[in-house]
Amino acid sequence: MRWDNEAFHILDQTRLPFEESYLPCRRHEEVVDAIRRLAVRGAPNIGIAAAYGATLAARAALKLTFGERHSFIKRALGELEGARPTAVNLKWSVRSMQLAWSSIGESCTEEVVPRFLTEARRLEDAERASNERIAELGASILPAGDVVTHCNTGTLASVGLGTALGVIRESHRLGKVGRVYTCETRPLLQGLRLTAWELGRAQIPFTAICDSMAAWLMKTKRPVAVIVGADRIAGNGDVANKIGTYALAILARHHEIPFFVAAPVTTFDIALASGAEIPIEERAPDEIFSILGKGGQLKSGTAWNPSFDMTPHELITAIICEKGIAYPPYHDTLRDVLER
Amino acid sequence: MRWDNEAFHILDQTRLPFEESYLPCRRHEEVVDAIRRLAVRGAPNIGIAAAYGATLAARAALKLTFGERHSFIKRALGELEGARPTAVNLKWSVRSMQLAWSSIGESCTEEVVPRFLTEARRLEDAERASNERIAELGASILPAGDVVTHCNTGTLASVGLGTALGVIRESHRLGKVGRVYTCETRPLLQGLRLTAWELGRAQIPFTAICDSMAAWLMKTKRPVAVIVGADRIAGNGDVANKIGTYALAILARHHEIPFFVAAPVTTFDIALASGAEIPIEERAPDEIFSILGKGGQLKSGTAWNPSFDMTPHELITAIICEKGIAYPPYHDTLRDVLER
Repeated sequence: MRWDNEAFHILDQTRLPFEESYLPCRRHEEVVDAIRRLAVRGAPNIGIAAAYGATLAARAALKLTFGERHSFIKRALGELEGARPTAVNLKWSVRSMQLAWSSIGESCTEEVVPRFLTEARRLEDAERASNERIAELGASILPAGDVVTHCNTGTLASVGLGTALGVIRESHRLGKVGRVYTCETRPLLQGLRLTAWELGRAQIPFTAICDSMAAWLMKTKRPVAVIVGADRIAGNGDVANKIGTYALAILARHHEIPFFVAAPVTTFDIALASGAEIPIEERAPDEIFSILGKGGQLKSGTAWNPSFDMTPHELITAIICEKGIAYPPYHDTLRDVLER
Repeated sequence: MRWDNEAFHILDQTRLPFEESYLPCRRHEEVVDAIRRLAVRGAPNIGIAAAYGATLAARAALKLTFGERHSFIKRALGELEGARPTAVNLKWSVRSMQLAWSSIGESCTEEVVPRFLTEARRLEDAERASNERIAELGASILPAGDVVTHCNTGTLASVGLGTALGVIRESHRLGKVGRVYTCETRPLLQGLRLTAWELGRAQIPFTAICDSMAAWLMKTKRPVAVIVGADRIAGNGDVANKIGTYALAILARHHEIPFFVAAPVTTFDIALASGAEIPIEERAPDEIFSILGKGGQLKSGTAWNPSFDMTPHELITAIICEKGIAYPPYHDTLRDVLER
């Protein structure tokens, strides 16, 4: 993602790994659309994209009559926040933009654009710094050996090193990670398309597997850890993350393999008592059937397509954020770590 | 599959659900090839296909000099048996053809073709009858409610009703099964392509899911059972079956959902002390990467593609075959059931 005075440019991840093309967004509606259709994805990333989307909205507002501007910006913030339901980063980011706006009395004059842009850049810089710290902290506790990861939590999911994949990169740099097993992550194949692409570029040895192979991999190849990112973390340590995470956590427990979660503080929603309160996005069945190409005739059957699942805290060995590492019981430890 | 005097015709399952086309096999090598590339698949099915393949070999042998015939048939039997390693049905079927051949003194005259054809038909008829009995027995113990299945174990995997899917069909006929959740079964999507197609035709309500969704499904939709087929069952009840089965068994145990296996006696290999002795076929990484279409550049990375995994007996609630239902401890009960 990059901002210039003309537009906010988003790398279109739906075209990776075959094409590196940027979508120039000039209106916040284009950012909302890019988030909805996963052209930009990853919980930290969509938070930052929403901040720049708000900046586009502020710029667009100045072209309206003065009386229309305030409600236009308000509505835009709501639309950005509502683009996807599960990751809390969107809410956090929009709340920060709202606070920045409030700090200038919800002004609708020229000053709103530089104020929004400054805030978006501050959020982006903070995310980048947090990624570095997560990588360092995570690498300090990740055991040495081969690791399993799911979805994409790298530079494509965030504005810096990434979260779980940042930890893996840093561990590999320190000589601790041998091979990375990347689950393909159906239906949208973020693991096969994006994580494999990132690991290949970083020259980190990897092996892609279908999601269904993780159990047999754990049994026969003995990876030393599973590490994933998060879309929202409740106050008791329950973690909403990409569909398939919950299965991996159960399988890791069955094989006595530690299961780690790495995420920035913007992913925590500790006001929630448990993961049961986290909304789980369900997307169109087409995302599953489209793998068949010609497809049509099967659509008479139904498919169920939850994009996320919720991993209960008791299956999680540790949660790593830029402020520290929390261990069970998370109900007690998460708040302490976040208040550091 | 159907035999006529001209050829042995195999429904090409790689083209389903979009095209119902038959491959006319005139030489046993074409049957070996169809088995290898999964044009014909399903443990019971490939056993029967091999029997007709042997009949084609017998017919071809008669066109050779008399001196060449015996070694040609011997070699053909070996090639058919070795077409795929995991399902024991191939071995069982080839052994039956060998016994039929021995019963005529390994004759290499005209009589060999009708003798082989008679044996192939006998095996096919026995398989069909066994499927019916498995469906009846299985339906008697399957709890009422929604069920989860994996891969394809229906009429496309066998010559009759199928195994696990036969049980589901019969249970549905009795009003016990509500909805069938069919795991798509990466990498070759037998669940999404074949099981969905069969269930649609049979007007049984189904919902397709990605394999990674099974855990969250078990947690939130509360299916009452998981039922799968098998490619080989060891003497202690360990079951080799399509990759992903082992994961489902662990997830079912975690959610206290019973896990059933349905298979004909031709799938049992009780001389094996445990599943550790079952060879697990690994196929080309391309089968995984080909989902990306254009593909090329990712092939520099590797993928691991085991086609089967092994579910240990302690995760299996009951094993259903046409001779009865075995419950743990299988080490004691399997032999009793099979000797009925």
